[in-house]
Amino acid sequence: MTWEAHMRTALELAANGPATGVNPRVGCVIVADDGRVLSEGWHRGVGTPHAEVDALSRLPEGGARGATAVVTLEPCNHWGHTGPCSEALITAGVARVVYAVADPGQHSSGGADRLREAGVEVVPGVLADEVEHFLDDWLTAARLGRPHITVKWAASLDGRTAAADGTSRWITGAAARQRVHEQREASDAIVVGTGTVLTDDPSLTARGDAGELMGTQPTPVVVGTRAVPNDAAVFRHPNPVIFEGTHDLEAVVADLHQRGFRRVYVEGGPTLATAFVAAGLVDEYAIYVAPTLLGGPQHAIGDIGVTTIAEQRRLRILDIERLGQDLYIRAVPAAEVPAPQVPAPEVPAAEPGTAPAKES
Amino acid sequence: MTWEAHMRTALELAANGPATGVNPRVGCVIVADDGRVLSEGWHRGVGTPHAEVDALSRLPEGGARGATAVVTLEPCNHWGHTGPCSEALITAGVARVVYAVADPGQHSSGGADRLREAGVEVVPGVLADEVEHFLDDWLTAARLGRPHITVKWAASLDGRTAAADGTSRWITGAAARQRVHEQREASDAIVVGTGTVLTDDPSLTARGDAGELMGTQPTPVVVGTRAVPNDAAVFRHPNPVIFEGTHDLEAVVADLHQRGFRRVYVEGGPTLATAFVAAGLVDEYAIYVAPTLLGGPQHAIGDIGVTTIAEQRRLRILDIERLGQDLYIRAVPAAEVPAPQVPAPEVPAAEPGTAPAKES
Repeated sequence: MTWEAHMRTALELAANGPATGVNPRVGCVIVADDGRVLSEGWHRGVGTPHAEVDALSRLPEGGARGATAVVTLEPCNHWGHTGPCSEALITAGVARVVYAVADPGQHSSGGADRLREAGVEVVPGVLADEVEHFLDDWLTAARLGRPHITVKWAASLDGRTAAADGTSRWITGAAARQRVHEQREASDAIVVGTGTVLTDDPSLTARGDAGELMGTQPTPVVVGTRAVPNDAAVFRHPNPVIFEGTHDLEAVVADLHQRGFRRVYVEGGPTLATAFVAAGLVDEYAIYVAPTLLGGPQHAIGDIGVTTIAEQRRLRILDIERLGQDLYIRAVPAAEVPAPQVPAPEVPAAEPGTAPAKES
Repeated sequence: MTWEAHMRTALELAANGPATGVNPRVGCVIVADDGRVLSEGWHRGVGTPHAEVDALSRLPEGGARGATAVVTLEPCNHWGHTGPCSEALITAGVARVVYAVADPGQHSSGGADRLREAGVEVVPGVLADEVEHFLDDWLTAARLGRPHITVKWAASLDGRTAAADGTSRWITGAAARQRVHEQREASDAIVVGTGTVLTDDPSLTARGDAGELMGTQPTPVVVGTRAVPNDAAVFRHPNPVIFEGTHDLEAVVADLHQRGFRRVYVEGGPTLATAFVAAGLVDEYAIYVAPTLLGGPQHAIGDIGVTTIAEQRRLRILDIERLGQDLYIRAVPAAEVPAPQVPAPEVPAAEPGTAPAKES
């Protein structure tokens, strides 16, 4: 088996852990030199052993000597409820540590350096994308001190969310709409602007195929300063609605973090989506594209402050899926804004001495 | 082998025929009752036998009796340079005819009916999508009396073709740009508006990886009434540029058909693309989507006359391909504008008696 295959096992082990709580879900596989799996472990939540220690504890004294620990998150280097995993691995005589994602924690990071100092071979980044996605809410909280934010929109192939008169029922099909409900269910909070409440009167519940309420319901959050009528559907949501009476999204996000929300789903409308993009407060994009053209003034995204092409907001597409007739595009901001791309070598013109033509 | 597999062979045979000329490229396979291929044929151009007759001619007298003819296009029923293929197949004693696409010709259609009258089993529509695509320019000319029109644009995920200041170099990557050059090479004419000539000064040539001119060059066509400077790059195109000094696209298209162009590639800008969409003069969409967001005023598609959702222009996506970081979406207008979709059953609200919420 390759390290990737072992890492996939570790990721499956990690998923045994509790989905909520302040600690990340981590899995670990201890692998012998000849590829045999010696033991497995995972983290069961605050106050319990970390995944590496859990896996080591299932081996006899000296049983991990010369072996490889494959672990989803960089071993911690921090004396918390438990001792640092880096020290435990060194003490156990592990020869190699393979991990997926670096620990961004202010106090817990540095495990890889500590392991290398002690002569342990370190292989980082194996299956990093999948593990990043698995841990995205925890990683966002650890790195940025705020919830993980997904901005969703559903638009035509030309980027419109509605016809000129505002009608939009339906642009996307049933499969895409159902996926949105699943994403709502997997979120702690759904955020909309007051404009959307006034225009669409959404209920913001997560519902199944037959319209039934799903087992877990996100908390509805309404952002903005306009008054919302007393009989708005959002007031009938199983969870009490939170009103954020400001246009300061940093403040909104800080408040949601404070309230313990870790996974936030921004559903619109275009004004709010545009504001989140412009503020750089998007960790993931859930873009549903219907095979239709609408033209006209109802844009999914408005002015995000890009005045010239060097300022474009590059994304990285992680997945494209066909849902019925529609496309679902999952994307994240590109790791860093790339320097303006070097244009391809100038194309020889049919005659020399001419100005370069644009995409000509 | 299934009929589809035989049809694929017939399609490969068809591709042996000449790519230009007024006749369609057609292939035919004669298959015995036990699935053996008895003979193959294809059409070599005006004045030569049609594919069915070509395939039959390779068999001894009576060799096709009881067999199946698998042919890409409905057998003709027309006395032209050659006799009708329907009669040839009946005379040969063929028991079954499997075809992909119906003959839309005013004089040549009716072959399937004639075969059925004579007691021949007819199986239409096998591999129809692929054969439609293969014959799209010929079919468009036969059905509509005009060239096959592809409208291309390259846009961000939010449907913009440039930043606010008009800069767009580059939104899409090298692989997508190269595909555009291949599509230019495969076109008889490239159409742009005068605005694009004034703004971008494109050369409108088809070029290879290293910028070299490809073997076949489309004819550049400029539509509009604004004056174009004498030193525009388009004047250095290997083929003389055609100016269509009108905004009447029906007249433009008729003129291009008259000139013998069968495959037209509309490259912009947004004003012209929007006009073609609004006029219903698009047979295929070549949409390049870059993983980036731009916002702002530079839309790939403007007002196409859709005022309410029932008027949306539904498309059918044929292919999605990843080209480097970009997506290439090939789509066609949906066969017919579907009746407004029946909304899913109204969702039970958390409390009864509420107005239905929109995508809520």
